[in-house]
Amino acid sequence: MSFNEFPSKLLENAVNEFASLPGIGRKTAFRLVMNLLRRDSEEVKRFGESIAKLHAEIHYCNICHNISDTEICNICTDKSRDNSIVCVVENIQDVMAIENTRQFKGLYHVLGGIISTIDGIGPADLKIDSLEDKVKGGGITEVIFALSTTMEGDTTNYYLYRRLNKYNIRLTTLARGVAIGDELEYTDEITLGRSITNRTPFITPV
Amino acid sequence: MSFNEFPSKLLENAVNEFASLPGIGRKTAFRLVMNLLRRDSEEVKRFGESIAKLHAEIHYCNICHNISDTEICNICTDKSRDNSIVCVVENIQDVMAIENTRQFKGLYHVLGGIISTIDGIGPADLKIDSLEDKVKGGGITEVIFALSTTMEGDTTNYYLYRRLNKYNIRLTTLARGVAIGDELEYTDEITLGRSITNRTPFITPV
Repeated sequence: MSFNEFPSKLLENAVNEFASLPGIGRKTAFRLVMNLLRRDSEEVKRFGESIAKLHAEIHYCNICHNISDTEICNICTDKSRDNSIVCVVENIQDVMAIENTRQFKGLYHVLGGIISTIDGIGPADLKIDSLEDKVKGGGITEVIFALSTTMEGDTTNYYLYRRLNKYNIRLTTLARGVAIGDELEYTDEITLGRSITNRTPFITPV
Repeated sequence: MSFNEFPSKLLENAVNEFASLPGIGRKTAFRLVMNLLRRDSEEVKRFGESIAKLHAEIHYCNICHNISDTEICNICTDKSRDNSIVCVVENIQDVMAIENTRQFKGLYHVLGGIISTIDGIGPADLKIDSLEDKVKGGGITEVIFALSTTMEGDTTNYYLYRRLNKYNIRLTTLARGVAIGDELEYTDEITLGRSITNRTPFITPV
């Protein structure tokens, strides 16, 4: 079925709104709207409000720029975390991904993107000044660059390095190597080469 | 990334709402919410309103039960259409699909579902009484059953046939046969058998 003519302008508007979301085509949008239409009005109201409220009431943490319901996020207010280590990430998805590993007990700093000439994103568009201020303020011993291993990630890493290297702190990056579960045969040679160069002491499993 | 812990309850609520839609998993829901979050508040407001408005203001045509912005839909008010032929369909998607063919100039009657014992939908749940009233009212010469060729569709067809057969009108159904573009080799034997039995005169292409 194609969608040249809608029996209702209201229906068409709702379908168009859903179809404006990434990865949602008009057919899917139509299916989603029909699903909402079959629900009772309380549920639909709640759906609409959850979006409106998110946008109106969401905060970004004043310290790390992570998304938050409060002025300062849960992670930054957590006294049990090590506030001398700051992990720099691109976005809040990355914070959640690292949090889910339960391996990191320091704080984060969300840049809000990475330097990309193609997308026209320069250092001034990112939360880099506040990162430098944080480091300048003292108390931080290590900054971890946890950005994607892409051209843009590497560019941003290098830029951050140049900005932060003058302060007397450790600058580290995520270990690169063969992913757990991967077969060597299918690992790309750059990754494999780096994982040999940066080999680590063998630890027998407990 | 898994989603055990959200940095924000508002974010989590919005993701949960999107994830309640059919075919939208939590990862996709998250991506959609993040997209909305990056838009300006006017756009997001419009998004939420389009849904709320749809639900609050939508009408169902008093005559054919199609979705409509008005009490009577555009199709039923269109004087150029043949109001002696009524095409019975399951839902508004089917109306749109047939309208898009531009081959039908009669009116529709939307049942709002089909009889299904598994889903607990009986004749009383569908707009069948109003269809019979319409036929009883006179002026209708033909009712086309345009339902799916499934067990449920056949059951509904048969039920409608029993309800409407006593009135002196033509009862027809969509032609079944080999789909245009299909190869005979891969056409199922029931369809192929029916298309031989109901063969039509050969017309040379113009």
